[in-house]
Amino acid sequence: MTTTFDHVGVATTDGAELAATFETLFEAPLVHEEVFDGMALRFLELGDGYLELLEPAADGTIARFLDGHGPGIHHVALRTDDVRAALDRARDAGVALVDEEPRPGAWGHEVAFLHPKSTGGVLVEYVERDDAP
Amino acid sequence: MTTTFDHVGVATTDGAELAATFETLFEAPLVHEEVFDGMALRFLELGDGYLELLEPAADGTIARFLDGHGPGIHHVALRTDDVRAALDRARDAGVALVDEEPRPGAWGHEVAFLHPKSTGGVLVEYVERDDAP
Repeated sequence: MTTTFDHVGVATTDGAELAATFETLFEAPLVHEEVFDGMALRFLELGDGYLELLEPAADGTIARFLDGHGPGIHHVALRTDDVRAALDRARDAGVALVDEEPRPGAWGHEVAFLHPKSTGGVLVEYVERDDAP
Repeated sequence: MTTTFDHVGVATTDGAELAATFETLFEAPLVHEEVFDGMALRFLELGDGYLELLEPAADGTIARFLDGHGPGIHHVALRTDDVRAALDRARDAGVALVDEEPRPGAWGHEVAFLHPKSTGGVLVEYVERDDAP
């Protein structure tokens, strides 16, 4: 099992504007847009990883995050070749889980979130990408 | 000029404990420790990037961040082969800068921070690594 960066998720009130800024600053082209689970998502390619912009499309997690924290980094996503094994390892280590089982996430990938109370305040997402190299 | 992920910086009150947790969960070995600019820094290798744990060793930025926000993600660092050119591009785009010029950062690298007010609330660090592939 290997773990690498997949993306950093950024909560924003204006995904289109922030995508344009990041594309200019980081040469990070917009490669995928999707409305998923009440969020307008934009993925910008950065090397072999991504920046994910999360804009609320309805009430929900991101709208609440913006109300409480304002815009900024929301989570870090780590790429694994086996999200179920990664989740088992976290469970065995006594880490609190948001998702007890892998579930479909954005872009059709299997994902699972760990609870930040066990990971130093960092919301961690495991992502298993079928198209990963 | 290419831009890729270098690291995610995590503010913590206990770097040793969080390093052990992340090493277990992410197979991310501790590869560098340094006290720099009033911070006890730990770098964990994750693929060709890093997780950077920042623990206050004195009053300063990280101590204030912890007071205001609690532990969690502090910044995202992007690797560039020319931090001065990246900074010029940001300045030309009207982005507010924390560092007007590149300066020596942790691990002896040239770094510069952009101001989060111009980047969607995200504190962005550019890093130029002489040892980058």
